[in-house]
Amino acid sequence: MSGNSIGRLFRVTTWGESHGVATGAVGDGCPANLSLSESDIQKELNLRNPGLSPSSSARKEEDIVEILSGIFEGKTTGTPISLIIKNRDVKSGDYANLKDVFRPGHGDITYQRKYGIRDYRGGGRASARETAARVAAGAIAGKIIDLAGMEVIAYTVELGGIMADRRDLADIGGNALCCPDVEAAKKMQDRLDEAKKKGDSLGGIVEIVVKGCPSGLGEPVFEKMDAGLAGALMSIGSVKGVEIGAGFRVARMSGSECNDPITPEGFLSNNAGGILAGITNGDDIVIRVACKPIPSIEITQQTIDIYGKPETISIHGRHDVCVIPRIVPVCEAMVRIVLADHFLRHQSANGSKLFG
Amino acid sequence: MSGNSIGRLFRVTTWGESHGVATGAVGDGCPANLSLSESDIQKELNLRNPGLSPSSSARKEEDIVEILSGIFEGKTTGTPISLIIKNRDVKSGDYANLKDVFRPGHGDITYQRKYGIRDYRGGGRASARETAARVAAGAIAGKIIDLAGMEVIAYTVELGGIMADRRDLADIGGNALCCPDVEAAKKMQDRLDEAKKKGDSLGGIVEIVVKGCPSGLGEPVFEKMDAGLAGALMSIGSVKGVEIGAGFRVARMSGSECNDPITPEGFLSNNAGGILAGITNGDDIVIRVACKPIPSIEITQQTIDIYGKPETISIHGRHDVCVIPRIVPVCEAMVRIVLADHFLRHQSANGSKLFG
Amino acid sequence: MSGNSIGRLFRVTTWGESHGVATGAVGDGCPANLSLSESDIQKELNLRNPGLSPSSSARKEEDIVEILSGIFEGKTTGTPISLIIKNRDVKSGDYANLKDVFRPGHGDITYQRKYGIRDYRGGGRASARETAARVAAGAIAGKIIDLAGMEVIAYTVELGGIMADRRDLADIGGNALCCPDVEAAKKMQDRLDEAKKKGDSLGGIVEIVVKGCPSGLGEPVFEKMDAGLAGALMSIGSVKGVEIGAGFRVARMSGSECNDPITPEGFLSNNAGGILAGITNGDDIVIRVACKPIPSIEITQQTIDIYGKPETISIHGRHDVCVIPRIVPVCEAMVRIVLADHFLRHQSANGSKLFG
Amino acid sequence: MSGNSIGRLFRVTTWGESHGVATGAVGDGCPANLSLSESDIQKELNLRNPGLSPSSSARKEEDIVEILSGIFEGKTTGTPISLIIKNRDVKSGDYANLKDVFRPGHGDITYQRKYGIRDYRGGGRASARETAARVAAGAIAGKIIDLAGMEVIAYTVELGGIMADRRDLADIGGNALCCPDVEAAKKMQDRLDEAKKKGDSLGGIVEIVVKGCPSGLGEPVFEKMDAGLAGALMSIGSVKGVEIGAGFRVARMSGSECNDPITPEGFLSNNAGGILAGITNGDDIVIRVACKPIPSIEITQQTIDIYGKPETISIHGRHDVCVIPRIVPVCEAMVRIVLADHFLRHQSANGSKLFG
Repeated sequence: MSGNSIGRLFRVTTWGESHGVATGAVGDGCPANLSLSESDIQKELNLRNPGLSPSSSARKEEDIVEILSGIFEGKTTGTPISLIIKNRDVKSGDYANLKDVFRPGHGDITYQRKYGIRDYRGGGRASARETAARVAAGAIAGKIIDLAGMEVIAYTVELGGIMADRRDLADIGGNALCCPDVEAAKKMQDRLDEAKKKGDSLGGIVEIVVKGCPSGLGEPVFEKMDAGLAGALMSIGSVKGVEIGAGFRVARMSGSECNDPITPEGFLSNNAGGILAGITNGDDIVIRVACKPIPSIEITQQTIDIYGKPETISIHGRHDVCVIPRIVPVCEAMVRIVLADHFLRHQSANGSKLFG
Repeated sequence: MSGNSIGRLFRVTTWGESHGVATGAVGDGCPANLSLSESDIQKELNLRNPGLSPSSSARKEEDIVEILSGIFEGKTTGTPISLIIKNRDVKSGDYANLKDVFRPGHGDITYQRKYGIRDYRGGGRASARETAARVAAGAIAGKIIDLAGMEVIAYTVELGGIMADRRDLADIGGNALCCPDVEAAKKMQDRLDEAKKKGDSLGGIVEIVVKGCPSGLGEPVFEKMDAGLAGALMSIGSVKGVEIGAGFRVARMSGSECNDPITPEGFLSNNAGGILAGITNGDDIVIRVACKPIPSIEITQQTIDIYGKPETISIHGRHDVCVIPRIVPVCEAMVRIVLADHFLRHQSANGSKLFG
Repeated sequence: MSGNSIGRLFRVTTWGESHGVATGAVGDGCPANLSLSESDIQKELNLRNPGLSPSSSARKEEDIVEILSGIFEGKTTGTPISLIIKNRDVKSGDYANLKDVFRPGHGDITYQRKYGIRDYRGGGRASARETAARVAAGAIAGKIIDLAGMEVIAYTVELGGIMADRRDLADIGGNALCCPDVEAAKKMQDRLDEAKKKGDSLGGIVEIVVKGCPSGLGEPVFEKMDAGLAGALMSIGSVKGVEIGAGFRVARMSGSECNDPITPEGFLSNNAGGILAGITNGDDIVIRVACKPIPSIEITQQTIDIYGKPETISIHGRHDVCVIPRIVPVCEAMVRIVLADHFLRHQSANGSKLFG
Repeated sequence: MSGNSIGRLFRVTTWGESHGVATGAVGDGCPANLSLSESDIQKELNLRNPGLSPSSSARKEEDIVEILSGIFEGKTTGTPISLIIKNRDVKSGDYANLKDVFRPGHGDITYQRKYGIRDYRGGGRASARETAARVAAGAIAGKIIDLAGMEVIAYTVELGGIMADRRDLADIGGNALCCPDVEAAKKMQDRLDEAKKKGDSLGGIVEIVVKGCPSGLGEPVFEKMDAGLAGALMSIGSVKGVEIGAGFRVARMSGSECNDPITPEGFLSNNAGGILAGITNGDDIVIRVACKPIPSIEITQQTIDIYGKPETISIHGRHDVCVIPRIVPVCEAMVRIVLADHFLRHQSANGSKLFG
């Protein structure tokens, strides 16, 4: 039933539908006395907004966040931080024709079957719009992990079949696709343009790196760090796969290739992706997620209506061609939320590296 | 801190170290009046036991489960079901030489760093032995989902670089590697033999299919069915990647390829892997997990001791060459546990398909 | 850390400070397809508002609730229901003089010590104002238990030493103190008037009865129905004691007096208060809570400032003389929230009495 | 459904029936490197055992605890600590005649109605025997709070209508009833003897004091310290009321009487019972619980059988006359468990007073 909260010590609850009054988040369990302002959060939200890229939706979402509680004189007080993002520029009329028909690849059919009712306007709660609240809450988490010296960076490593050959993190900000390989970014953009022309959409892969993560975070056995990250990232609507470190490549490795040799200076490789037996080992955490193509496409598709009769559908409107780059800050937010929670858990028994 | 429980309504807690007195599980929240006997659980445990395959550890673990509570006259009573598996044939002496040195690819170094103490005998809590308790608890979950008409089947689809070309589920039981492609199984076995000779180990991929899953299971947004499955499977020590349906392949698909067309008779494809927007759609759930090679190998590796000094290590003893096939029932168990929990959650608000 | 949520299947999260922008609640896990409107919630909130009674604060809080999510075309959709109550008529200036001094009986000193910071305006998060969000969320819970045929009624049985001799529930609505004994209500009112003149405040006892509760709700052993009720009610700021059925009187009973004899027509007495071994027995649930006097009084008190220096304090402003009657709907709300959660839990394994 | 766990960071799960193979507990989340031996736990268990007092059951329960996991070389490792207490001297035959009839005041009828099945032997899971596991787990919690300088002491303040006039804690150990007033203890014993002769039973009140509790523990608003304590104590089968500090007496106080004046040296009174706004204030925590008479009595009672037909019942066997003194260590255990959990929660955000 209830499933809209994540985290045990730092716990985020989100709410809101695509075409409702607003969406929002409550961040509970943030330590007191951290500086936090609306602009700290707004900065993250802006990364998620449709920008210059033709891959992005034309719906002009200037998501403006307001802090409703939990901050006093610019600082967190330890009480729940309530955030609200009012919905603007909402044209529900666009969706009236989708009332009675299930869009392939969307949650329309499963929400209807589960609940016997659904807010069909723009996907309701299953809309990507729900992720705005995650990004806002992730900004609170960011304050916690910043203090602990951790940094989370996500970027595009594959889109429409084009792979980034390089990981030049300095280049991420320089292109609309958040790609660390500028040459690849151009080719990705070409693919997006082609897909747009065809009325189709594309998938891709986002990689997330955590730098500065201390060793010791993660709670065996069911609440391992990698288990928490996998669950949190797989909860993003478009994600169909999550891998840590060498990920699926480990299946073709031998032990002598896969084991990361240990030296007094650290590990000689990072196939583990910074996590051993569910606990961080002090190396960078490296995660990749596979994002499916946006299911709303103009190309005509076969489907059924809510009465079970065959239908065809061609979806017009303000849709992105790919969840990249807008999903990039969402991935960062989810990783920050998991890290903040695990950092606080670790503190509970292992004393204060931070707040002492 | 506490991290050894999973599930909200059907909740499993496991405990125990590789070379302690015993391992066990408590299954809490099982509905009353289900038939459950030790042999129901033993049957599953036996699947995890070292069998004929040379890939398996020579440690003779006849894991015998005992039910300590929760059953009365052969039926569940709704109270916690406590299971114990006593450790036998334990040779702690084998591990004395590992007291002061960290084995690459193992949790030795992270447990030491997190806790400042570790039970170094056989990996302690981080041992694969911990999964025996999962399998035992999974057998309880199996009773719940059996009733609901769900069936979970896992099998090997890749090992040491050899891929199964076929999914002939009838063949799974006919080979030691639980592979649905008998020809591939032979080649996989050859690879295992080679690796064993070299003192090395191998990785692989296990696929899990859920048949008969009703539509409507899974709780948006953070407790989606796929999020739960990903977290549960990633909590298995060897797993470094989880994908649902088309998984990482979606990154290279277009929307028109990836979306599963809907017809009155059902979906025409299953790239979604049976889950849309985190809720089951009535189709088979399909999951794949990437398993890393067993880190304990005879080949000499570079490492450090607990004082930080460089060391080399060659690990002898009764180790498997690959976690396959022993991980197969563990994957099934974790999926059953997640399904049982989600089935009960769904019941809570949507009425009784089962117990009415 | 995070502690602002209650419930497992129906989960309520509240947020907001007395003198912040707003307070609110998120109700997650409400079944779909229940009718719910703002007026359903407003009706409950109005009961908590300062009314005619001189015992009530002069702060004119017309708490207007807005539903921000989770409702579509007048019905719940199964997604989180976000409620907001904007703060109006807030005079923070009133509290500037309390910035540096701890009010006896208040949370000022403990919040300061726990968090090292506090929103001193009107008690911040520790204000009774926080309970508005509970009442609003309780109205959602009310929809669930209404359907199940349960009814929750709270009323005043003691105030300022005056005890209600009768339990004429029809009289509750007819007096400002929600007392089922009109004669006693008059005497209570006299006591309130006296206390007000002295600049003092008074305590009292509220009794809560649940009618129509089916047998079988409550989960042994730590999540018994009475344990859940006690925790939920004790979480109300003013409550210092909770008792079920005969409550503290059981200490002076013999077994032959205390045991409720069972007959085919039901129990002959109700010392159990409707709960046996943590599970409802089908009889009325009866609970009493002891409410302390409001700590803000004009009478001069001894205290210290935030630097530890002795101070005296006389608190002027818009304070109630007694938490009764405003706490009455808060008690009802907490009981409804616990019942709704337990009802859904029970459904999960025992099939649908309601939603089938 | 699942309801046999308590705590968030330090989490205890218990299992076992009165006449099953064993009862036990899993303590998860205990910090590493604490010394813990079976004798530490046995010491607590012995306090719960039938001793010299004629008020105690004649069933000779030498509860012997075994540690099955989580300890290595005498120290906690941070992994789950599994405890088992095997049932001995069990005569199920004694209970065969109770198979078809509901004992008044017991959970027989509610378990049967909830689950449709029950282990009728000795009350099954609803037996007071279940509390042995609580006491064992409480000993682990004791190790955590010992370190933090907290001490929990429970004692009898009322039994069969006799009240202790004094609180001479040094006298608690000197009488079989754990009463801090030796004179009162004698009168209580007389009452017990009388009740035993009549085949009846008696109730009483236990007071629990926590000394040395630091200020700042407890998480507003639903997870306040007092809410946690009330829920934990009310989960003990016999408890029908819980009060903190002045408890129900606050109902008759004025604010000027009830508020504890604050001075640089501390509070001048302790009506708050050490908790303000749900957070500990550094003073002693004081709690009282009302315990009902043991429902198993020889005096003939009116009841029904499982088919709903009227019956009379006279219960013979090895029953105590009063839950006091055996409930005393159970109360201590529950308070220790709550304190340990809250201590760890507080640590998570507020740094290490202990483990640094």
